[in-house]
Amino acid sequence: MAITLTILGSSSALPTSERFTSAHVLNVHEHLFLIDCGEGTQIRFRQLKQHFNKLNHIFISHLHGDHFFGIFGLLSSLQLLGRKNNLDIYSFPDLENIIINITKLFGEEFSFPITFHNLQNTKSEVLFSDKNIEVTSFPLKHRVPTCGFVFREKPKPNNIIKEKIIEFDISISDIQKIKNGSNLILSDGKVIPNSELTKPGKKSFSYAYCSDTIFLPEIVPYIKGVDILYHEATFLENYLERAVSTFHSTAKQAAEIAKLAKVGKLYIGHYSARYKNLNEFLDETKNIFAETYLATDGLKISFE
Amino acid sequence: MAITLTILGSSSALPTSERFTSAHVLNVHEHLFLIDCGEGTQIRFRQLKQHFNKLNHIFISHLHGDHFFGIFGLLSSLQLLGRKNNLDIYSFPDLENIIINITKLFGEEFSFPITFHNLQNTKSEVLFSDKNIEVTSFPLKHRVPTCGFVFREKPKPNNIIKEKIIEFDISISDIQKIKNGSNLILSDGKVIPNSELTKPGKKSFSYAYCSDTIFLPEIVPYIKGVDILYHEATFLENYLERAVSTFHSTAKQAAEIAKLAKVGKLYIGHYSARYKNLNEFLDETKNIFAETYLATDGLKISFE
Repeated sequence: MAITLTILGSSSALPTSERFTSAHVLNVHEHLFLIDCGEGTQIRFRQLKQHFNKLNHIFISHLHGDHFFGIFGLLSSLQLLGRKNNLDIYSFPDLENIIINITKLFGEEFSFPITFHNLQNTKSEVLFSDKNIEVTSFPLKHRVPTCGFVFREKPKPNNIIKEKIIEFDISISDIQKIKNGSNLILSDGKVIPNSELTKPGKKSFSYAYCSDTIFLPEIVPYIKGVDILYHEATFLENYLERAVSTFHSTAKQAAEIAKLAKVGKLYIGHYSARYKNLNEFLDETKNIFAETYLATDGLKISFE
Repeated sequence: MAITLTILGSSSALPTSERFTSAHVLNVHEHLFLIDCGEGTQIRFRQLKQHFNKLNHIFISHLHGDHFFGIFGLLSSLQLLGRKNNLDIYSFPDLENIIINITKLFGEEFSFPITFHNLQNTKSEVLFSDKNIEVTSFPLKHRVPTCGFVFREKPKPNNIIKEKIIEFDISISDIQKIKNGSNLILSDGKVIPNSELTKPGKKSFSYAYCSDTIFLPEIVPYIKGVDILYHEATFLENYLERAVSTFHSTAKQAAEIAKLAKVGKLYIGHYSARYKNLNEFLDETKNIFAETYLATDGLKISFE
C-alpha cells in the first residue's frame, strides 16, 4: 500500500507539445483522487498507467477551461467502459449545468450516478473524509471563484514495541487494544500505561494543491507544514506585473508561500507556454526555498 | 505551394495512450481546414507543427464527443493567442449553443468573430468555395445526424506549350489569355485554336472524409474517383454485428466502398481501442482494395 502523486499536466492555459494543462492524480492506497482535469487528462491517465476504475473523486479547483475541459471526454470514456459506481465531483455549480447540457446532446443518461458537490470559496470546509484521508478546501484568489485543496492522511495508530510483547507476554487481542490506545492490565492488577508500550506510528502524509492564485499569504494557515505543497508558478519574476494583473503567481512568490508555511517540499507548475527552459524557475526559488522541485508531465512522487 | 493531409487523431470513441480521437488537417496552399476536433486536437496541432493562424475553417462531422470535445480548448487557445480573424465552423446547431454556454462561464466574449454554418444531413450541399477549393457535404448514416465532406481542388488552368511560345513569339499578356482559354490571333488574322497551344494543367486533387457511418453504398456518387478516401473502420469483420448495431463500419466494408467508388487510395482509421495490432486491418482489406493504408496519428500525406 502506498501513496503517490502523479502529475498529468503542468502547463497553464496554453498547452505545449509536451505539457498538457492541469491535472494531478493522488493515489491513496489504490483509491484515486483526480485534482483538476485539463484537456487530455484521460489520455495522460492511460499513458501513465492510472486505472479508471479506481477513480471515484474529482476535484475541480475553478472553471477555467485549462482546469476542466478534459472532464467531458473522461466522463464519456467512463460511460463507454461500463462504469456503474458513483462518481463524486467537487466543483462550482456551473460545471453541473454544462455537463448536463452536453449529456443531453447524446440523448443518453450516464450509466453511473454522479454526485455533484458545490464548492464555496468564502471559507474552508471538509469536502470528504474516510478512514484513510480527509480532504479540505480553502479559498484562493483568482479571476473566478477558486479553491485550493489539502489532502491529509488520518493519524496512524501507534506501533507496539516488540520487546514489550515478549516482556509482558501480551496476547494478540490485547495487542490490538494497545495499538488503539488502551493500557495493559497485568494479572496482578498492575497497570502498564500505553505510552510505555508503544511508539508513534508512521507520520501521516499531507499534500496541498494551490492553483490558480495570486500571491496570497492568507492561505498559509491552511497549508502549514504539509509534506508536499503544489503551488502554481505561471510566471518568472520578469512577468510579475502580468502575474498580478492575471491573478497568477511567480516562482519566487510560490517559494515565499512555501517558506512561510514551512512545508516539506514545494512542487511548482502551471508554467506559461512562453517558457521553454524550466530550470529558470528553480534558479528563482533556490535562495528562498531550497526544497523546490519542478512538477512536469509524467512525474510520480512517492510519499514515504 | 503544396497540399497535405495530416492525421491528428485516429482512435474511435476511446482514445488510447498513442491514438487521440478524430481530427484531420488539410493544408491547401497554407490554408488549413480542420475536419473534426477530438480531445487534444490543439496539442497534436502543436506536436505536428501546424499553425493556428492559418486555420480559418473547421468542419465537425457530427456531435459525438470524440469528434468535437477538442473545440473548447482550441477556441480558448485561439483567444489567448490574440486571434482577430473570423473563424468559420460548419456543424450541427447544438454545437453553437454549447460553445456559447461555455463561453458565458468566462464572462468574456471571444476576441474574434465565429460564423456558425448549420449542416444538414438530408442532402449534399456546397459548404465553401474559393479560388482553390470547393468543400461539399453529403449525408452519412450514424446514430446522430452526420455528414461526410469532399474537398475538391478547382480545375487548374491549362499549361501553355513552351515550343508554341517560341514558334509564334507570343507576348506575356497573350500567354495569360491563352492559359485562361483564349485562342491566339496572329497579325495576319489567322486563328490558332487554344487546343493547339496548350496541354491540360496538373490534375486537381480530391479528398473525401467519411466518419462515422454504417456501411452505406449510397455515398458512392459523392466520393466517386477521389484521390484519397478516408473512411472509418472502427471494427474488423469479427465485430460486424457490433459495427451494425453501433452504426459503424468494418475495414472490409470500407474497402468495399473504396472499390465501388473507384478511388485512388483508401485510408482507414477511427479504430476501436480494443485493437492493438492495426496490421490486421490491412489483412482484411488487401484482397478487396489493395491501395489501402492506415491513417495513424501523425501521418502526413502529400497530394502530388
